[in-house]
Amino acid sequence: MAADASDAGQQLLALGASELRDRLASGALDAVTLVESCLARIAARDPEVHAWAHVDPDFARHQARAMDAHRRSGRPLGALHGLPVGVKDIIDTARMPTGNGCALDAGRVPAKDAWIIQRLKSAGAIILGKTVSTELAYLHPGATRNPHNLDHTPGGSSSGSAAAVADGMVPLAIGTQTGGSVIRPAAFCGVTGFKPSFGAIPRNGVLMQSHTLDTLGVFASDPTGAAILAEVIFGYDPADTATSPAPFPALERTAASAPPLPPVFAIVRPPGWERADDDLKQAIAGLEEALGEQAFSVDLPEIFAEAAAQRERINLAEMSRYYYHYERDGAAQLSDVVLKAIRSGATMPARDYLAALDWPRILGVALEEIFSRCDAILCPAAPGPAPAGLESTGDAIFNGLWTLCGTPAVTVPILTASNGLPMGVQLVAGRGDDARLMRTARWLYDWADG
Amino acid sequence: MAADASDAGQQLLALGASELRDRLASGALDAVTLVESCLARIAARDPEVHAWAHVDPDFARHQARAMDAHRRSGRPLGALHGLPVGVKDIIDTARMPTGNGCALDAGRVPAKDAWIIQRLKSAGAIILGKTVSTELAYLHPGATRNPHNLDHTPGGSSSGSAAAVADGMVPLAIGTQTGGSVIRPAAFCGVTGFKPSFGAIPRNGVLMQSHTLDTLGVFASDPTGAAILAEVIFGYDPADTATSPAPFPALERTAASAPPLPPVFAIVRPPGWERADDDLKQAIAGLEEALGEQAFSVDLPEIFAEAAAQRERINLAEMSRYYYHYERDGAAQLSDVVLKAIRSGATMPARDYLAALDWPRILGVALEEIFSRCDAILCPAAPGPAPAGLESTGDAIFNGLWTLCGTPAVTVPILTASNGLPMGVQLVAGRGDDARLMRTARWLYDWADG
Repeated sequence: MAADASDAGQQLLALGASELRDRLASGALDAVTLVESCLARIAARDPEVHAWAHVDPDFARHQARAMDAHRRSGRPLGALHGLPVGVKDIIDTARMPTGNGCALDAGRVPAKDAWIIQRLKSAGAIILGKTVSTELAYLHPGATRNPHNLDHTPGGSSSGSAAAVADGMVPLAIGTQTGGSVIRPAAFCGVTGFKPSFGAIPRNGVLMQSHTLDTLGVFASDPTGAAILAEVIFGYDPADTATSPAPFPALERTAASAPPLPPVFAIVRPPGWERADDDLKQAIAGLEEALGEQAFSVDLPEIFAEAAAQRERINLAEMSRYYYHYERDGAAQLSDVVLKAIRSGATMPARDYLAALDWPRILGVALEEIFSRCDAILCPAAPGPAPAGLESTGDAIFNGLWTLCGTPAVTVPILTASNGLPMGVQLVAGRGDDARLMRTARWLYDWADG
Repeated sequence: MAADASDAGQQLLALGASELRDRLASGALDAVTLVESCLARIAARDPEVHAWAHVDPDFARHQARAMDAHRRSGRPLGALHGLPVGVKDIIDTARMPTGNGCALDAGRVPAKDAWIIQRLKSAGAIILGKTVSTELAYLHPGATRNPHNLDHTPGGSSSGSAAAVADGMVPLAIGTQTGGSVIRPAAFCGVTGFKPSFGAIPRNGVLMQSHTLDTLGVFASDPTGAAILAEVIFGYDPADTATSPAPFPALERTAASAPPLPPVFAIVRPPGWERADDDLKQAIAGLEEALGEQAFSVDLPEIFAEAAAQRERINLAEMSRYYYHYERDGAAQLSDVVLKAIRSGATMPARDYLAALDWPRILGVALEEIFSRCDAILCPAAPGPAPAGLESTGDAIFNGLWTLCGTPAVTVPILTASNGLPMGVQLVAGRGDDARLMRTARWLYDWADG
């Protein structure tokens, strides 16, 4: 009986967010049933995976019952009605702990929801709980393990969000990326991770590490699920000057639509390519061959080799400003890696920082030329599958460039390494071209499947 | 005969820009006649005043003839049709030298007009010439003298623009302010100087000293003239991210209209008040008394004392980034004061710079409360009249605060010191409230006159 219920729950969670959403809307599925399945999976698996920083089963059930009652009353439903969402633990949730992955913030309970949490609730989403972040969303790992192999890193810093979706504990999750914190864990855990254009999703109520780089992103099992979640939280908030009151793309509808022409991919082997596994290099070469006329190789100009260093300057300078009080008040409780970063940022001259801020524009000019000739750049999401060991979250070399440029990026889980671990293919489009990117990602996902 | 012509020219130039514009539009006055009057005045006075860095009489006449022909053809006229304008020599003018007040840029001729020059030309303005800037729009004085007393400073850094308008060489001029470079010279020279809200006027093609502070501004004999000129150059330019595609205020019409209620002034004695002359303190007290129920005194919160230091941090850090190549390539040809500023900025930590960037918002909260109770803050434009001597451009202590806050400020020439030199009354409004500010300034100007 218990095994049967658990099996049924697992079959349910194997469905994508799109199918779950439709069943919830039609009444074929109760939110309570779905939430119980999530909670059962968490109870069974999280003692090993450690994807969650906080789950309150009673509160989750309470939200699910409210959503079911809402539907039964015949009132109109939000775009995420009844869908459970995991939220990275650096995103403020009212009356629910938000610990920022940091001993100094343990037990911290915000009074107010972040802007995106308000949006999620308005859309009918169930805030299932908070997912593990690395310490202050930087490099020092949290407790999370890779659900595909517990001895391997899940990636970071949105470790829990990626692992929870990958392990079928929740259909959707939210994360953030300052270097590679959405794309890398999604690729290592074998799910879809989408980091939209810089400024697409308001950040009010999210731990600020770098206002020039911090970008919210989403996790789902497939590109369609990612598009559904992202569309709800795209928006304009005057409190976040990176956002703007422009029309927002119809992500879900565009992602679901057929491209007018077969998409064309510019295959890029970005700076750091020499650090890539042979497995990965072969997989990219295989993709290029299989895509045939739909792919061409392109080299990035040499100045792109500078991008990683310039991104780091911005990250460290702004981090030293925003994390100043952590170092001042609690240096002894911080990891060496965070402490070193804050202190290194504190010595950075403003002049070097300001010069680094010019780079997105400089690189953007070169990228525009490439984007004019393709639907998306195709490149690896990481140098290989998740490395063994839990002391590092892996190499973000293939992610920081796109964070710096503010271009939307998505990793699609269509590759497998020779050790059986998943690898991701990263697609990148011009800033603002998020909807077409998600359509191209969905096309690639289906193409690899078919 | 020559004396008669000169007298007539001077009577002409004593008219405000508004009256001149109307006569030019009706055909009662030819642009050629007006330009000849300006050129005659420059020929007579500029060997002593040194307001101009570059005047090409033939090119000025050429533009005037073209404007007169345009009018005679019956085609519609721009808002500044036939009006000569002086342009600070840090603003790029195509094929006309733009020397940035700096030996290293002597003879530099831009290929392209600045955004505002294109606007001025489209509106029918005549670019009469380039006015003297201090070296790189910082503190080292240019050759300009105060037309009211040649032994006194005209103020800076828009020295030539203020002096040229004050001396009747041109009815309108453009300047820039990073600390106090519009308001202070306008006050010292006894004209109206208007520094609009930060972001109101696009800066593309203008020497960048500090992207957070640099603000374009205008000079005229009276507030109406300033409103006419400013309205033409308010706008949106995607290349200047400080500007935004919002509706622009009807500055001229609003400035010309009667306030619905008698305007109310919040009299502020800002940080640095102890440095003010007795003359000035008495004048402000006299104004407060004369305005009666239309004025009340208010103290700024103590944190405002920090504003000058925070503004300077931003200025020096950004200046060290934008002026980097001047120091690298030509340190020997720079003044000590510019060199010291660039080098001091180069040692500023990014963290301190980033912390300083928070101050406009912090101060803005306190200001909002004051602006909700008045039409404008009334405070001195400078600690007194123009000081004697040409080695300093005077004290900008009463200006930098408003530049930092991005609030619009205007100085109205309605006070006279006991030594006969003019003093300015500075009015300040909330950011974006430029039109009401100019209406209040025009009201005060007329009130003092009547």
